[in-house]
Amino acid sequence: MTSSGSNSDRGTLPGSAPWAAAWELLLPVADAPARARGRTLQAALREAIRSGRLARGTRLPASRELAADLGVSRGLVTEAYEQLVAEGYLLSGRGAGTWVGAVVHTTAPPPAQDLAPRPPGARADFVPGTPDLSLFPRAAWAAAQRGVLAELAHHELGYPDPRGLPRLRVALAELLTRRRGVVADPERIVVVSGVAQASTLLGAVLHARGARVVGVEDPGSPEHGTLYAATGLATVALPLDDEGLAVGPLREAGVRAVVTTPAHQFPTGIAYSARPRGELLDWARTVDGLVVEDDYDGDFRYDRAPVGALQGLDPERVAYTGSVSKSLAPGLRLGWLLVPAWLAEEVVERKRTMDLGHPTIDQALFARFVERGDYDRQLRRCQRAYRERRDVLVAALAEHFPGAEVSGIAAGLHVIVALPDRYGAVEGFLERARAGGVRVRGVVEYGRVPDGRVRLVLGYAHLSPGRIREGVRLLAAVVG
Amino acid sequence: MTSSGSNSDRGTLPGSAPWAAAWELLLPVADAPARARGRTLQAALREAIRSGRLARGTRLPASRELAADLGVSRGLVTEAYEQLVAEGYLLSGRGAGTWVGAVVHTTAPPPAQDLAPRPPGARADFVPGTPDLSLFPRAAWAAAQRGVLAELAHHELGYPDPRGLPRLRVALAELLTRRRGVVADPERIVVVSGVAQASTLLGAVLHARGARVVGVEDPGSPEHGTLYAATGLATVALPLDDEGLAVGPLREAGVRAVVTTPAHQFPTGIAYSARPRGELLDWARTVDGLVVEDDYDGDFRYDRAPVGALQGLDPERVAYTGSVSKSLAPGLRLGWLLVPAWLAEEVVERKRTMDLGHPTIDQALFARFVERGDYDRQLRRCQRAYRERRDVLVAALAEHFPGAEVSGIAAGLHVIVALPDRYGAVEGFLERARAGGVRVRGVVEYGRVPDGRVRLVLGYAHLSPGRIREGVRLLAAVVG
Repeated sequence: MTSSGSNSDRGTLPGSAPWAAAWELLLPVADAPARARGRTLQAALREAIRSGRLARGTRLPASRELAADLGVSRGLVTEAYEQLVAEGYLLSGRGAGTWVGAVVHTTAPPPAQDLAPRPPGARADFVPGTPDLSLFPRAAWAAAQRGVLAELAHHELGYPDPRGLPRLRVALAELLTRRRGVVADPERIVVVSGVAQASTLLGAVLHARGARVVGVEDPGSPEHGTLYAATGLATVALPLDDEGLAVGPLREAGVRAVVTTPAHQFPTGIAYSARPRGELLDWARTVDGLVVEDDYDGDFRYDRAPVGALQGLDPERVAYTGSVSKSLAPGLRLGWLLVPAWLAEEVVERKRTMDLGHPTIDQALFARFVERGDYDRQLRRCQRAYRERRDVLVAALAEHFPGAEVSGIAAGLHVIVALPDRYGAVEGFLERARAGGVRVRGVVEYGRVPDGRVRLVLGYAHLSPGRIREGVRLLAAVVG
Repeated sequence: MTSSGSNSDRGTLPGSAPWAAAWELLLPVADAPARARGRTLQAALREAIRSGRLARGTRLPASRELAADLGVSRGLVTEAYEQLVAEGYLLSGRGAGTWVGAVVHTTAPPPAQDLAPRPPGARADFVPGTPDLSLFPRAAWAAAQRGVLAELAHHELGYPDPRGLPRLRVALAELLTRRRGVVADPERIVVVSGVAQASTLLGAVLHARGARVVGVEDPGSPEHGTLYAATGLATVALPLDDEGLAVGPLREAGVRAVVTTPAHQFPTGIAYSARPRGELLDWARTVDGLVVEDDYDGDFRYDRAPVGALQGLDPERVAYTGSVSKSLAPGLRLGWLLVPAWLAEEVVERKRTMDLGHPTIDQALFARFVERGDYDRQLRRCQRAYRERRDVLVAALAEHFPGAEVSGIAAGLHVIVALPDRYGAVEGFLERARAGGVRVRGVVEYGRVPDGRVRLVLGYAHLSPGRIREGVRLLAAVVG
């Protein structure tokens, strides 16, 4: 049980990742049946490399050390190393140990909002898209798990209603009416796996009805384009003005559907004012069209009363979608889509052929969570935590980037900062940040911008106040 | 707390459904927040009627009785009745009470394998497609729930890998290799919500590659046609011979993809012999095509060693799919798809745009369930129960339908019975069975049959031995 290895003998795992120094978590093989352990270890190693969690160049521990850490025989580790060297995942040299080679990552590249695990290794990471996963309410969730399995009738474990569990749709209707001002009859709610599935459902239905193009915001989330493209729809990028989507270019584009983020535009942070809201709905009525409202972070608003959802103004012209990805965890894959009556049947049939409906136990669990007030409690808790982080970020920016203009701060989980001219052009700035180990995105990466000034999109929800302060300080240092 | 109502005052709920006499289960409103209870009750009533769970003509209890049963105020029930009468869901007459009117069911009609809740009211129900949901291992599942939430790292609650959790893919590879003889590298497994999603993924990818038609078995599951049609693919019905799919018509059809059920053909119960297996793979190699293997009930085989999956013979020509719908519960919505290397990337990208990947906690939970041997235990338990039921069914058929030929009994959850000529033509037989309150399907409902003789598809997994005996006796009585 004694270990002769010094730290440097034990391989280097990037220090900032949550699993740092925990090979057992990265390569969970001890629980596998004895006869499957070798294969399990090899698969887990391949996986860690292909996903980028073990980055190129990472040195692996000596085989006896890893064997001790994982609680398996040394021979099994040696065999795994040899196998992966043979396959090209690993490299080794006489006396030089074993390290990760150059592997093409087969996992899809992280899109702009980072709907993928964060790559390890950055010294600071302001890329938006993930909430603080440590705020996930494990105790309350575990209680709901216990309760729900005890109360489900046998027959409820059968094939689900593709629209979703009636109990959950009733709970969601109450919740969304109260919190987001939507018109939410349970009959027009479809339980989905998230905004991505909602987009794919809507895209497929619009395509089947003859649409070939949808409008998207510019700048906007590239994920919208990816999702609608997969259903056969091209996208046309439509400019914003200071208050929201500019309706003139929308009218000229000739589309009959447009995807929007009115509560907190991504990435600019604009909350659509009454004027573009009204113009958008007028347009939809005129062209017999559809506005898709992606309320991806509408749960979070810090200084004023929440802006009600656009859908509430005209539920027959707006399809509204949201999820628990920012309020609980993206890994739950649970969301909702409110559709106009004229689209409901086609959307439900698409949902049915896509997966026959959402897992029942998950739905019943979340219904219970909402009904008992646990979800409201969670939203309040996140709201408090994220407001504090936003305040810390704004203060740190004022300290380290004097003259910076911060906007989009009233809501959501990211802000926009426009820097004074002395920071030079945005390309050079982003290059220096990257070289200095700071992950940060420019608005320019999401579409059109008014000029070459540095405008950054800073996601803060996943960072502790301390890491926010340190990250801003570091950014200022490396770009200075 | 005293109730003056006789049984007939309390409304009639069909007696055979699992929720019989349990209005609380059908209309779960007591848990809803006080202010939402009225709306909850109305929505639940609408839902029960639209789904057919409350059938046309069902009498509802007097308002004071239902109020007592549900633990709500009488005024709230009266209001709900009035509202639903106004909406046309309910009818009422002076002194005659309240009953369910004629409502067009908006839930999709149950397809052949009944991927929908069973309608109540039948005296016996042999329609195949659902396992015995009371065999769901609640205690072991609850234990896995607890364990998994405790062991998940925070970062694992982020956006999932669209292919599925590595840990689950490793566990599935071991399981499927061992039990089904597939070639199951974790790298070519995609975790899906079930066979329906697997079909939609494959259909979408084949369509994007230029396919416009796929072959399906005739007779076969109508659901295959529905699912592939939703992806833009027409189907061509291909005849079987005594040993499996007939390869001659397949060659002539000009398709390059065909959907099959080789382990236990649905509905005929044929296990493909070596000849059609070999011919099918030869065909696929010749046309550079794909065989889809829907292993919907391949876990259950009673008298001989299991027939290994077709996929094991040529993993580059077969896409293999299965799920826990028959072994655990359809409501879990969890399954797997093994794809040839040349399709893997496209299938994963489709899965990503369809839902960004399967819910993480569900995946980790099932991985744990498999790793600890709980899934093998469950399969053994179901195998024992279903073998007994099959034996009971075969014996009851011998007793009540002398001269009947029973086939397809070696595997799966349904058998085929061909009756002697004295039972007349199949249409009249099915008509008499229906009129007598017995839900049963003829092979003719699934496609071509050799002659007009009565051939029935009898699903038995969801019925206790006593109900099987009683159901066969009843069927004999009503068609006699």
